[in-house]
Amino acid sequence: MKETIGFIGLGNLGLPMASNLLNTGYDLTVYNRTASKAAPLVAQGACLASRPVDAVTAGGIVVTILWDDESVESIVKSDGFLEQLGSEGIHISMSTLSPDTSRKLAVLHGEHGSILVEAPIFGVPQAAVGRELSIPMAGAQKAKERIRPILEAMGGLNIYDFGEEVGAANQVKLVGNFMIASAVYTIREALTMVEKNGGDPKAVIDMLTQTLFNAPIYKRYGQMVVDKESHLFTQNKIPLKDVGIFKKTSQQVDSPVPISSLLHNLLSCEQEQN
Amino acid sequence: MKETIGFIGLGNLGLPMASNLLNTGYDLTVYNRTASKAAPLVAQGACLASRPVDAVTAGGIVVTILWDDESVESIVKSDGFLEQLGSEGIHISMSTLSPDTSRKLAVLHGEHGSILVEAPIFGVPQAAVGRELSIPMAGAQKAKERIRPILEAMGGLNIYDFGEEVGAANQVKLVGNFMIASAVYTIREALTMVEKNGGDPKAVIDMLTQTLFNAPIYKRYGQMVVDKESHLFTQNKIPLKDVGIFKKTSQQVDSPVPISSLLHNLLSCEQEQN
Repeated sequence: MKETIGFIGLGNLGLPMASNLLNTGYDLTVYNRTASKAAPLVAQGACLASRPVDAVTAGGIVVTILWDDESVESIVKSDGFLEQLGSEGIHISMSTLSPDTSRKLAVLHGEHGSILVEAPIFGVPQAAVGRELSIPMAGAQKAKERIRPILEAMGGLNIYDFGEEVGAANQVKLVGNFMIASAVYTIREALTMVEKNGGDPKAVIDMLTQTLFNAPIYKRYGQMVVDKESHLFTQNKIPLKDVGIFKKTSQQVDSPVPISSLLHNLLSCEQEQN
Repeated sequence: MKETIGFIGLGNLGLPMASNLLNTGYDLTVYNRTASKAAPLVAQGACLASRPVDAVTAGGIVVTILWDDESVESIVKSDGFLEQLGSEGIHISMSTLSPDTSRKLAVLHGEHGSILVEAPIFGVPQAAVGRELSIPMAGAQKAKERIRPILEAMGGLNIYDFGEEVGAANQVKLVGNFMIASAVYTIREALTMVEKNGGDPKAVIDMLTQTLFNAPIYKRYGQMVVDKESHLFTQNKIPLKDVGIFKKTSQQVDSPVPISSLLHNLLSCEQEQN
């Protein structure tokens, strides 16, 4: 029997993932602050909730894909949300959160008999459409087993289990986003040197991404740098937010932050200039 | 008809590459400052030269794989070297040099009728043994055509042509080594955060190198960081030297150096501590 799923947050990633669920045959009740964004899903058969709690079924599954710690916290603490989800209910938390916040929310759920599973998403919107998302997850074993087919139906291709301790999956996500930001600035610094010395940036990145750096991230952002479009990444608010959380999470345990500090400064500067 | 090749510099990479040439059937005259290192090649049939010039055949091919700009310059300017190589002679310069030095040496060759082709090497010694080296090359077209089979016989698997202008191939090499240094410090900062937060660095890098960062460099150095052996890279003199040249080559053309400056400082500190 298919679950009825509450789906909260219909941004660039949430929308195609919710659409995938509908296409797979799941029943969906969706909520978004700007309700008009739900229109294509309603046309696909989704119900539209007017409050977050109205997307929650007792003992069911509710998904959040929202901007930041604060927006997820405000949903979880919204009137009746935890009480309605109740025993056996699962909250799949797919936003990139600080591990601290994620653990705090898991405790709140525990107090109401419900369970939080972290499952932040690696992937651009096209990867959601193409069902090629990479998803690390962490939380109670039984809950993870119940949600795995749902993650796959959303577009999860590579689903990795990081154990039962909430916080672990968000660590992976923060590490990944930090590494992406580092790669983008590194490629940009490298190819600018080549260009200003009269070389051919495209030929250089082509060789490197066909050999030593033959990875999706280098191919994608190498092309973006060659096309003079890397500001679409560096002026986006997500890398700044996530490198900031990575840095803070490192500093809390006295882990050195030379690269993340530099990247955070560079990203901050580009936001201000923008 | 096989060429007789002069081979100068029998370090960790030079030795297996010279051995590959002998195995392919080329006649070799080898020179190394510390002559005893040539013993295994002499046992394979190579002639041992007592001076660099004695490894040079008129109109022939001579290879250098040496430590830095200065060591290659001193060979090229050594008594009789350029005169002996003469017209139609080719110097395959495989060390990582500053593009400036490489161009300067190419001009010196031109004055004696010989040709310099840059062909710096991406690859660890095991990759030379396994014939999996990546080699960018730049120089006169005809000379590149003559040396390509020799580069392949040395262990070159991926040979990329960066045109006729000397300096271009060393730019690629510097870019690559800069990007490797950046990746190593980034992975180390990332996995230290995970470890100090009680996570599993191996599980994290495994997911990332199976998905977004599925590239040889990330797999190799990710494992090195997990094994607490990344100092074998960061305390090695090569990254410090090459990131230094990358930075200088950038600064000469007013190209920004935020990442390479930081990496140069970090590498310098580790050398001093060592």
